Amino acid sequence: MEFLGYISGFVDGEGTFSVSFNRRAKLNAGIEVRPSFSVSQNKRNLKILQDIQKHFGVGGLRFSKRDQNYKYEVRSIDDLMSKIIPHFQKYPLRTSKKKDFQFFVQICKLVHNKHHLNPKYLKQIITWAYQMNESGQRRYKQKDLLRFIAR
Amino acid sequence: MEFLGYISGFVDGEGTFSVSFNRRAKLNAGIEVRPSFSVSQNKRNLKILQDIQKHFGVGGLRFSKRDQNYKYEVRSIDDLMSKIIPHFQKYPLRTSKKKDFQFFVQICKLVHNKHHLNPKYLKQIITWAYQMNESGQRRYKQKDLLRFIAR
Repeated sequence: MEFLGYISGFVDGEGTFSVSFNRRAKLNAGIEVRPSFSVSQNKRNLKILQDIQKHFGVGGLRFSKRDQNYKYEVRSIDDLMSKIIPHFQKYPLRTSKKKDFQFFVQICKLVHNKHHLNPKYLKQIITWAYQMNESGQRRYKQKDLLRFIAR
Repeated sequence: MEFLGYISGFVDGEGTFSVSFNRRAKLNAGIEVRPSFSVSQNKRNLKILQDIQKHFGVGGLRFSKRDQNYKYEVRSIDDLMSKIIPHFQKYPLRTSKKKDFQFFVQICKLVHNKHHLNPKYLKQIITWAYQMNESGQRRYKQKDLLRFIAR
């Protein structure tokens, strides 16, 4: 029980809910949508990431030589919907990250139902995603992505 | 219950247990020992710091214009011994910060019993404190502090 609350506190400080995009001309709407939940730590703290991975039973761990960090990451939409999102609905975040999470849930629901293949919903997803993690780096400007959506 | 675990998780990511020193020629051993527990957040996350302060019922909140952060901090040795330390003994940290906390507890016990006024214990305190938060900034080099202890 205590670890469940701990995970929410730790993720509220150290975790990231994000939605990134890739232009893929071959896809239906021309843009791939990639929701991701991740937590990064210096290599000395690998153990806590392993404990979190073990708890959720999904996702992968990888090492970045560049910054000497391990990253625990869940990208599978089924795993996000069945394991990650329910945890943070039951043990809520309490910082401004809660707002990111709420957009994340709405986007994952649309992706899970394949609505992101529909340009109308894809526009909604992009608009929501660009209100998340405002300090984060983006590969594309929002207006460029919206313009690229296949019509 | 859930918030108790949350606090430990949040502090494991965002909190600091530290012991700083000031040279005070008028003090018994010539050096003031200042244990501190703190959590800093951007001003948009003031609410979580207020919730943590309310939970512990001790410590203060202050705003730093320079970095636009609020800091929740507990410096009173009685409050550290009676409120803060027991919490993290019951709901443990899980990252490398656990090691900092263990040194912190040993130092607070000595300070609480006024043993820091004794040069022998003060040397022990300094040696432990300089094994905490290894990436943090220090006003004095360890060897200079040790040399300054009144004999």
